[in-house]
Amino acid sequence: MTTIQDIADKLGISKSTVSKALNDAPDVSEALRKQVLETAVALDYTKLRRYKKPVKKICVLIEKENIEYEKPHHFAYDIIMGFRQLAEPAGFEVETVAVDTAFQKNTAYDIFMLEHDYVGSFVLGFSLNDPWLKDFDNSKTPTALFDNHITGNPSTAYVGIDNDEGMDLMLSHLTSLGHRKIAYLSGSLGSYVLKARHSAFVRAMHHYGLVTDFENIGCSYYISECTEKYLPKFLESGITAVVCSHDNIASAAVTKCKQLGYKVPEDISIVGFDDLPIATSTSPKLTTVIQDRIELGKSGFFALSSLLNDIPISTFLLHSKLIIRESTSSVRTKKSSNL
Amino acid sequence: MTTIQDIADKLGISKSTVSKALNDAPDVSEALRKQVLETAVALDYTKLRRYKKPVKKICVLIEKENIEYEKPHHFAYDIIMGFRQLAEPAGFEVETVAVDTAFQKNTAYDIFMLEHDYVGSFVLGFSLNDPWLKDFDNSKTPTALFDNHITGNPSTAYVGIDNDEGMDLMLSHLTSLGHRKIAYLSGSLGSYVLKARHSAFVRAMHHYGLVTDFENIGCSYYISECTEKYLPKFLESGITAVVCSHDNIASAAVTKCKQLGYKVPEDISIVGFDDLPIATSTSPKLTTVIQDRIELGKSGFFALSSLLNDIPISTFLLHSKLIIRESTSSVRTKKSSNL
Repeated sequence: MTTIQDIADKLGISKSTVSKALNDAPDVSEALRKQVLETAVALDYTKLRRYKKPVKKICVLIEKENIEYEKPHHFAYDIIMGFRQLAEPAGFEVETVAVDTAFQKNTAYDIFMLEHDYVGSFVLGFSLNDPWLKDFDNSKTPTALFDNHITGNPSTAYVGIDNDEGMDLMLSHLTSLGHRKIAYLSGSLGSYVLKARHSAFVRAMHHYGLVTDFENIGCSYYISECTEKYLPKFLESGITAVVCSHDNIASAAVTKCKQLGYKVPEDISIVGFDDLPIATSTSPKLTTVIQDRIELGKSGFFALSSLLNDIPISTFLLHSKLIIRESTSSVRTKKSSNL
Repeated sequence: MTTIQDIADKLGISKSTVSKALNDAPDVSEALRKQVLETAVALDYTKLRRYKKPVKKICVLIEKENIEYEKPHHFAYDIIMGFRQLAEPAGFEVETVAVDTAFQKNTAYDIFMLEHDYVGSFVLGFSLNDPWLKDFDNSKTPTALFDNHITGNPSTAYVGIDNDEGMDLMLSHLTSLGHRKIAYLSGSLGSYVLKARHSAFVRAMHHYGLVTDFENIGCSYYISECTEKYLPKFLESGITAVVCSHDNIASAAVTKCKQLGYKVPEDISIVGFDDLPIATSTSPKLTTVIQDRIELGKSGFFALSSLLNDIPISTFLLHSKLIIRESTSSVRTKKSSNL
């Protein structure tokens, strides 16, 4: 049986490029796509025939005000790729639809789904303020939501990574380096996932016998407020490590610490979450928790496919994995005398 | 193509009996099983041939000191049925193995799995004290655990119901009936699931703006201690509803309340969890949270099958569903004057 590898070998290109071409990824040229398809047909690649027999339509719904997806370095790009990698061979036709709050206000979710003949959706980037979040409470359409949990509706499933595990692994790492005074810096708690990470941080701190209070937690919609308002206070109060709710904040925190004359990680350890591309372009490179976005996309399809088969999945989480890079080190002894 | 329904119609028996016979369920007689198999062959039932071609061996591991599984009314019986309903058609040979703590002490988990040629397992009934729970931390064998979560091992997955959602639905119901003083009665927190439900209760109370403290939470290994030591204190302190961690405690609590001269639900509402057979044999019948055990078994197979395919599932939860029966009612006005 012909595989993607056979097509890749024949053309002298990578397996992932073949996969992208077969999945209509936007970063593959039309010429290359044509060549891949012709080679696939020539080699009698059987899966391709299934791609071309759409049975049922499902959509990936993107909240375009909150999440980027069109280019390979965008957060949602690989999630969509992973979703399509399973959905299309399983006979589904997948459409990607970007919506904003104005659109949601004008059209009810279930009506939108019905009008377009979608039997289910995989939802990315919705915040707690998005109008459709209320629609999901009572929707009868099978809906898998990335990083959103709907209580009490058996037609919805929550897909994401295990944030509790991620925070636990992070605090295990920091406490093993001697850190006891640890602060948390977060984006605003207007999204389910940031609320979940905030709670996970508090629980993990408790698990390691450490104290959290208003003094060592700072949350703001604006990254600049995180670094201008909270970070200096943390540094002055003798905090030795800062856990950030995502890598963008961690990256900004690293820059701000340097401006304030603190060395990372010698004076202060800074860690992120998500393993965004920025995590390896900061100096020092960020210790963070990785989200495998291809696997998350596949999980989205697993969850949706279960709902479509009347299995009432509530929650489908992937294991978190800690990536230790350069932004964490042991607590300095007599650190306070250096300040 | 012949289906299970065709075999059932031919023999004039139910579809589920045919399924049980094909899955070697212990409550189907040898004579009936033979008849079902002969009919299946006569009708050219193709799936049967797959049952007879075991490709890989997996096991359901039962901690026999903690969970019963052999008879249809036992808690784990339907979970195992659900698991086999998916595993066997998928080409796996499933063996059910009961172990105790002594056995676990003498044999390491991974060695046991290797010796018996099992490529993965679905684990039921293990408490936090079971020796193999430590083995699961570092095991490389794909392992799906019912009601147990292992942090940081991508070869393990946690399968269960969404306890947070269950407690949320329960407290939504009780608060809508006017209850504000609500207590929690639980088995000892020596199992992951009872710890999870305890935390879920505290979080849900917080969500509804209600207070929890040492005065309204009682946990004990012995049901008799729950009803003798804690319940009278709750009743005296003006508690109007008691949430129990499982139906067995709720049932005992109902009996004890009656002995103490309190009417259920007029004087006090009592609710359980799990929807065990006992929930409908108490008087009044228990309001409780249902666990669909067939679906849980199927979820166990989904999770294990994902791990076997290198998808690092951490958590796979089913939606909780509230069943309102007779053991809950509105808070009596001027209830305190009746005491």
